[in-house]
Amino acid sequence: MLDLYIKNLTFLFKWILITSVIGVLAGSGSALFLFSLEWCTNYRLNNPYVLYFLPLSGLLIGLWYHFLGTNVAAGNNLIIDEYHKPKEIISIKMAPMVLITTLMTHIVGGSAGREGTAIQMSASLSDQLSRMFKIDSFDRKLILLAAISGGFASVFGTPLAGALFALEVALIGKISYKGIMVSFFAAYFSNFVCDAWGIHHTQYLVSEVPYFDLKYFPWVILAGIIFGITALSFSKATYIFANTFKKYINYPPFRPLVGGFVLLFFFLLFDLDKFQGLGVPFIEASFKNIETPQVFVLKLLFTAFTLSAGFKGGEVTPLFFIGATLGSALAVFMPLPVSLLAGMGFVAVFSGATNTPLACTFMAIELFGAAGGLYYGIACVVGYIFSGHSSIYSSQLIGEAKHPFFDFLKYKSLKNL
Amino acid sequence: MLDLYIKNLTFLFKWILITSVIGVLAGSGSALFLFSLEWCTNYRLNNPYVLYFLPLSGLLIGLWYHFLGTNVAAGNNLIIDEYHKPKEIISIKMAPMVLITTLMTHIVGGSAGREGTAIQMSASLSDQLSRMFKIDSFDRKLILLAAISGGFASVFGTPLAGALFALEVALIGKISYKGIMVSFFAAYFSNFVCDAWGIHHTQYLVSEVPYFDLKYFPWVILAGIIFGITALSFSKATYIFANTFKKYINYPPFRPLVGGFVLLFFFLLFDLDKFQGLGVPFIEASFKNIETPQVFVLKLLFTAFTLSAGFKGGEVTPLFFIGATLGSALAVFMPLPVSLLAGMGFVAVFSGATNTPLACTFMAIELFGAAGGLYYGIACVVGYIFSGHSSIYSSQLIGEAKHPFFDFLKYKSLKNL
Repeated sequence: MLDLYIKNLTFLFKWILITSVIGVLAGSGSALFLFSLEWCTNYRLNNPYVLYFLPLSGLLIGLWYHFLGTNVAAGNNLIIDEYHKPKEIISIKMAPMVLITTLMTHIVGGSAGREGTAIQMSASLSDQLSRMFKIDSFDRKLILLAAISGGFASVFGTPLAGALFALEVALIGKISYKGIMVSFFAAYFSNFVCDAWGIHHTQYLVSEVPYFDLKYFPWVILAGIIFGITALSFSKATYIFANTFKKYINYPPFRPLVGGFVLLFFFLLFDLDKFQGLGVPFIEASFKNIETPQVFVLKLLFTAFTLSAGFKGGEVTPLFFIGATLGSALAVFMPLPVSLLAGMGFVAVFSGATNTPLACTFMAIELFGAAGGLYYGIACVVGYIFSGHSSIYSSQLIGEAKHPFFDFLKYKSLKNL
Repeated sequence: MLDLYIKNLTFLFKWILITSVIGVLAGSGSALFLFSLEWCTNYRLNNPYVLYFLPLSGLLIGLWYHFLGTNVAAGNNLIIDEYHKPKEIISIKMAPMVLITTLMTHIVGGSAGREGTAIQMSASLSDQLSRMFKIDSFDRKLILLAAISGGFASVFGTPLAGALFALEVALIGKISYKGIMVSFFAAYFSNFVCDAWGIHHTQYLVSEVPYFDLKYFPWVILAGIIFGITALSFSKATYIFANTFKKYINYPPFRPLVGGFVLLFFFLLFDLDKFQGLGVPFIEASFKNIETPQVFVLKLLFTAFTLSAGFKGGEVTPLFFIGATLGSALAVFMPLPVSLLAGMGFVAVFSGATNTPLACTFMAIELFGAAGGLYYGIACVVGYIFSGHSSIYSSQLIGEAKHPFFDFLKYKSLKNL
C-alpha cells in the first residue's frame, strides 16, 4: 500500500507538471484562436463582400493541404489513430495550418465549428512533449488524452465536459479511468489559462425547467430519438458529400474551390446569411423563439457540405446549432419549454454524433445549470444509442456495441463498417 | 442500420417497462424506509432512554441474521457478487430484514447510513423479476444494475448520481455503456416514485464558490489526498474491527450484543450523542461552522465499529458526515470557504471509499449546484486515486489498477488482495 502511495505521488507531481505545460499550450492556443475567430467573424459581418472570396479561400486551403499538409489533413481522426496505434509524433505544422485555414473558412462565411481546430492545435503542440517518451508508451497516450481534454475544455470554457470528452472519445461505449486524473488536470489548467487571457465564452440561457413529471418522460425519449437520428444524418451527409467530391473531382485542391462556388451560389440566391460561420447569435435566439424545422436541416446540409469540400474547422458548434434549432422546433408540439428543448438538442445531437453522452451531460450542466440535469442526461443517452454505429470521427473504435446483438462489432473501427 | 434501429426500439420499450416497475419497487421502498427512518430518529431524540436498548437490539439483529438470514447477510457485496458471477435470485427476505434491522440500528442510536438498505431492498424486490430470464443472462445483469441505480437515486434524491453509481460500482476504474440507458431510466423512475410519495430530501448549502484560481489548485489536490486517505482508513477500520470481533467472539449474534454494550459505554461516558444515528443536522452544521478534527475521527470509528459489530444500515451517510466534517476542519488552514470544503469532503471521501468518482461529482452538482463542479470533480478524482485498492465493498473487482505499475491486479477481487 505504501508502495502504491509513493507511486501515486510521483505520478501526481509528474503529471501536474506536464498537464500545466499542456494547459499553457492548449489554453493559449484556444485563446488566440477564439480571439482571432471573433475578429474574423466581425470582419465578415461588417464587410459582406468577403463572401465572394469563398471559392478562392477554398482553393488556397486545398492547395496548402495538398502540397504541404497531407500528413496532418486527417485532423481529429489522426489524433484518435495515434492514440490507438501510435506511429509518429504529430507534426507541429498541424497547429498553424488548422488555425489559419479555419480562420480562412470562417472569414468568407463557411459553415464550420471550433472544437476540431482547438483540439488539433492542442495536440500538435502538446505532442512535441512526447519526444521525452517512447512513441508507443503509456505516457504518450496520456499526453494525447490531456491535449484533447485541454483543447476541448478551453475552447468552450467547460472543463468537466472537456475531461470527460477526452475519456470518452477514442473508444465508443467504454471508459477507462487510467487517465482520469490527467484528463481532469489538463482540463483545469487549459481552461484557467484561456480565462487568464481574458477570453469570455458564450452563455446560453435555459430560462425554465419544469419538474420532471412522468407526463414529460415520453417526450424526452422521443426528442432523444430524434436527436440521435439527426446526429446520424449529419455523419452520413458528411460521408456522402465527401465521397461525391472524391468521385467527381480528382484533384483535391479543386474540391473546396468548387464547393466554395456552390456555397456562394446558394448563399446569394436565397439570402441565407444565417448559415454562414459559427452562427452563435442564432443559437442564442433559438433558446428564446421557436424555430422552423428547415433551419436545422439547412444548417446540417451547409456544414456537412462545407467540411466535406475541404474547408477547415470543427463540427461541434454547428452541431450545437443544429441541435438547438431542432430542439427549439420541437417546442411546436412538445409540451416542454422552448429553452429546455433547445438546451437538450444542443448537447444531445452532439452526444449522438461523437458518442460522448457523459461529456455532453456535464457540458449541459456547465452551460445551462444543474436544474435540468436529468433532462439533458436522458436526452444525451438516448441520442447516443439512436445515432447507431456512426460518428463524425471515423477513427473511433467500438468498445461496446449499442445493442448486445451487435457484440461482434467490438473493437472494429467505424471506418471498416 | 435499420436492423439496429428495430432492435434498439424493442430494447427501449422492453426496458422502459421493466425499469418503470423497478422504479415503483425501488422508489416505494426508499420512501417507506426514509419515512420510517425519520420516525425512528425522532423517537430516539424524544426518548433518550432507548439508547439503553443498544445491546438488546444488537442481539436481536444478530440472532435474526444468524438463524434466518445467512443467505442475505453479505448485503451489498452479495449484489455485486451476483452481478459478476450469477448464482441464484436474491432472496425476497433481504428487503424486510434489512429494512427492519436498519431501523432497529437507528432507533437505538447506532451510527449507520442508508444507501446499503435502499439498494438491498431495491435489489431483493427487483430481482424477483429476474425469474422471467435466465439467471446468468444479460437481462438479469441489467435488472441488478437498474436495482442499484434505482435504490441509490431514490434514497438520496440524486438521479444522475444513482445512474452513474450503478455503472461504476461493480468494476473499479472501468465503465461500460451496455447498461447506460437502463441505469438512467431506473434512476429517473425510482426518484420520481419516491418524490410522488411526498418524500423530501435534505438540501445542503454551499454558500460561496470562489473562482477556481491557480492559488487554490494545490489546496484542492492536498484536500483530495486527505479525503482519499480517510476513505482508505474507514475501509481498513471496518476490516480490522470486523476481524477482531470474529477472532474474539465465536458466536455471531453475540458480536452486536457486545458491540452494543461498548457503544453504550462510550456514548454515556463521553456524552457523544452527535455520533448516534444518521447525524444529518451535524452534517448541515459543518457547512456553516468550522469543525474540530476529532469529530470526523470519532464518527469514522463509531460507524466502522457499529457496522463491524453486525448492526445494519449503509455506510454512505456516515461517509458524508466524515467527509463534510473533515472538509470543514480543513478550513482552519486552507484558504477556501468552509461550505465548499465541506461539500468537497462530503463527496470525495465517499468517492474514495466506493471508487465511484463520476457518480460523486454528479452527486455534488445535484446537491450543491453546478458552480463548484470542477472543485468537486478534482477532489473526487484525487480522492479516488488516493484511497488505493480499498473499498467498503470487498466484492468490487479491479477493472483498472490505480497506477499502471499495478496492472497485474486487473480483474482481481478486493477480497483477494
